[in-house]
Amino acid sequence: MCQLLSMNCNTPTDIVFSFTGFSERGGRTDEHKDGWGIAFFEEQGVRHIIDDKPAVESPLAELVKTQAIKSKNVIAHIRKATQGEISLQNCHPFIREAWGQEWVFAHNGDLKSFAPELTGAYRPLGNTDSELAFCYLMQSLTEEFGAHLPSIQQVRQFLKRFSAEVAQHGTFNFTLSNGAALYVHCSTKLHYVERGYPFTTAALNDDNLAVDFSTVTTPQDRVAVIVTEPLTNNEQWTAFAPGELKVFVDGRALAEAH
Amino acid sequence: MCQLLSMNCNTPTDIVFSFTGFSERGGRTDEHKDGWGIAFFEEQGVRHIIDDKPAVESPLAELVKTQAIKSKNVIAHIRKATQGEISLQNCHPFIREAWGQEWVFAHNGDLKSFAPELTGAYRPLGNTDSELAFCYLMQSLTEEFGAHLPSIQQVRQFLKRFSAEVAQHGTFNFTLSNGAALYVHCSTKLHYVERGYPFTTAALNDDNLAVDFSTVTTPQDRVAVIVTEPLTNNEQWTAFAPGELKVFVDGRALAEAH
Repeated sequence: MCQLLSMNCNTPTDIVFSFTGFSERGGRTDEHKDGWGIAFFEEQGVRHIIDDKPAVESPLAELVKTQAIKSKNVIAHIRKATQGEISLQNCHPFIREAWGQEWVFAHNGDLKSFAPELTGAYRPLGNTDSELAFCYLMQSLTEEFGAHLPSIQQVRQFLKRFSAEVAQHGTFNFTLSNGAALYVHCSTKLHYVERGYPFTTAALNDDNLAVDFSTVTTPQDRVAVIVTEPLTNNEQWTAFAPGELKVFVDGRALAEAH
Repeated sequence: MCQLLSMNCNTPTDIVFSFTGFSERGGRTDEHKDGWGIAFFEEQGVRHIIDDKPAVESPLAELVKTQAIKSKNVIAHIRKATQGEISLQNCHPFIREAWGQEWVFAHNGDLKSFAPELTGAYRPLGNTDSELAFCYLMQSLTEEFGAHLPSIQQVRQFLKRFSAEVAQHGTFNFTLSNGAALYVHCSTKLHYVERGYPFTTAALNDDNLAVDFSTVTTPQDRVAVIVTEPLTNNEQWTAFAPGELKVFVDGRALAEAH
């Protein structure tokens, strides 16, 4: 299995604090050492960093922890291989373009007897169930909406149906973003916290590090952090319900559409 | 304008020496400081690093110079913006998937009155003539060969026609790779060198650095380096002819097909 970390904000924010704790699980405090990756949306571009080394030994991960790259949507992943060997092409997050936007996807889980028919628009580079599911997702999404970029609500409705279908094959916790919203689906285990004014101090579970967010934010800032297992020991993390899909925009979960 | 650097080898090789000289042109020995990028093919995956900072100031470029990442096909680029602002999405190389392979493209030149019709399979993230040309290339290539990955010779023949068409709009020096071959088209200026046994010492034009390749190679190694302006002052660089397309496999230029 693997672990997921994502962040959605209303102003470009660095993920140094959360990633520092998260990456410890990539070989030190936990066993997810079969590669890692992170994608930062920056305007219309994406900074996509993947490495088949354990996160705790990777010079690229060290760079992520020191460079304070700022982004409104970040998707990160640490891998413990279930399907597919340890290699660069099997590292999450995966990335494909549609409607002139990058779409970024990371998965935690294991899909069995999953063999969707791919028409050829999107094909996997590697041999994970995760990338196969993502290619099928992008194919289905672009077939459904054709020439027109769907709205956030349209993507949400699509993902509800799509996730239910794929989850029949196993565990399908995933994060997906096109830079406009962060879509999060929970099969089994995911937690989130929304930080906003008044900001307080948070302390990591996996490393000896605390940050007083009130000193590095403005009252207008809002940040949502989504992760498999809570990162801090003094904040209120909310567990996702199995089968739940949440959409984060500007640092908070959108209300359920009716 | 911009500058291109590519490498094609028969065994995974690091590009530290060449990139060290090349990146100096990204703000120190030359004016190409509007971003840079590099892509390394590693098995079926690609390590894709782009940055809108000048190469001479970029921590990611520093990492490329110190980490000795090994690859058989590398495409690098330093940018001096002609069309499109300085931003991550406008940094080369660009990357798109087709037939379950990553295709990587970098361009030097300026295309005028260039407005190809895009059907939607590939669309630009940014607003450069270069990414537009690449999307049109990928669209045309996948339309021409449909479900079947073309052979190297088929891609070569396709690119000859395609390059002649696009070059009507201006300067179209480019490098393209899918990891199996490196395709290089010259409109105005490109040079290459093929290194093989017996290896000798090479000294950079842009930095005070020399390497005795005989100490870091085996007699079987072959490396071709392609660059806008020669990188070393004591090797025999061959200039491309205007309109010439060369294909490099296993560290040497393929003979022209008849």
